[in-house]
Amino acid sequence: MRIVTYGAACSLDGFIAPSDGSMDWLHFSRDVQEFMSTYWASIDTMLMGRKTWEVVVGMGSRGGGGGMKGITTYIFSRTLDRVGHGAHLVSEDAGEFVRQLKEQPGKGICVMGGGELAQSLFAAGVIDEVGLNVHPILLGSGVPFFRDAGRRISLELAESKVIDGGCVLSTYRVGKQGAKRGRATGDGRRRARGTGNRASRSG
Amino acid sequence: MRIVTYGAACSLDGFIAPSDGSMDWLHFSRDVQEFMSTYWASIDTMLMGRKTWEVVVGMGSRGGGGGMKGITTYIFSRTLDRVGHGAHLVSEDAGEFVRQLKEQPGKGICVMGGGELAQSLFAAGVIDEVGLNVHPILLGSGVPFFRDAGRRISLELAESKVIDGGCVLSTYRVGKQGAKRGRATGDGRRRARGTGNRASRSG
Repeated sequence: MRIVTYGAACSLDGFIAPSDGSMDWLHFSRDVQEFMSTYWASIDTMLMGRKTWEVVVGMGSRGGGGGMKGITTYIFSRTLDRVGHGAHLVSEDAGEFVRQLKEQPGKGICVMGGGELAQSLFAAGVIDEVGLNVHPILLGSGVPFFRDAGRRISLELAESKVIDGGCVLSTYRVGKQGAKRGRATGDGRRRARGTGNRASRSG
Repeated sequence: MRIVTYGAACSLDGFIAPSDGSMDWLHFSRDVQEFMSTYWASIDTMLMGRKTWEVVVGMGSRGGGGGMKGITTYIFSRTLDRVGHGAHLVSEDAGEFVRQLKEQPGKGICVMGGGELAQSLFAAGVIDEVGLNVHPILLGSGVPFFRDAGRRISLELAESKVIDGGCVLSTYRVGKQGAKRGRATGDGRRRARGTGNRASRSG
């Protein structure tokens, strides 16, 4: 089954962006480039909510790009009529959609953005991995990475290492009771999959 | 000058206690015992707000203990008249009190508790170190470790290592602009002090 990962760079107090949206606190090092290069090669699908999508499209209009080659992008929104830019609009239940998506053949699936979509996907038990690049700063306020999924979710640390700039890069696997809630079929294969280079433990 | 440390065990989503106050998610390993043993030997003063104090006193009544031998405890509250249990009540401005306390001779100073006192001490620029023992769990809601100090605070990673139970133990030093705000005198010695065994970098 395909692995669904929720990850981002965040501050030590858990924000992926400050209230003013500035990005000057992010440290783009060679370590990050290498990690991202490996990670992007492991996925073929991106999921995001409307707010994140609007940020991505806004960046595209300034030279970034709303779509990425070889990546299928799904935008979850109950208010948008269309999304354009080669992306696909999903108006149905996010958890159920992702549950079915995971059963289709393909590479890894990446959940982008500011926590609202991830919150519903955590609640539905379809997120398999959490990745954090914790930056050494307290932003104080902004867009939180985690929101309350309504219950405890146990994790298993797969790796944690210090990278350039005093950032701590950690990967967690979502515990079974978190990933299997409301799901009758077993999926013991999940832990044996994933990207092999992230299974080590350091520090 | 004495080092003021704010530290706690917390969940990956930044809570030091869930809404129901339960502690069953905390992993008390030999690694934690060794760290705490070294840390307690480096301090002689504890600071806490009223809410944390009431939790500590409550634990004391069940056999824990409101005071600790060799530790001077200050309780910050504008509503309490007295605190008892050998602790000292501080009703004046917390930041200014701690600023003066740091200039007196003594060992390290520990800020305990749920973030409200720490918030005002971060705002006053008197916290020197932040320590986190991040547990592999999402609690969803509860008592947050960090609260908005009203501005960004830059940190410097001193150490991060994986300990038993998939916990990630990290220590940060508060950046100069965070520690010196509203303070005219220099204190370049601060970074050369602290506990020597926490200056390494691993992972």
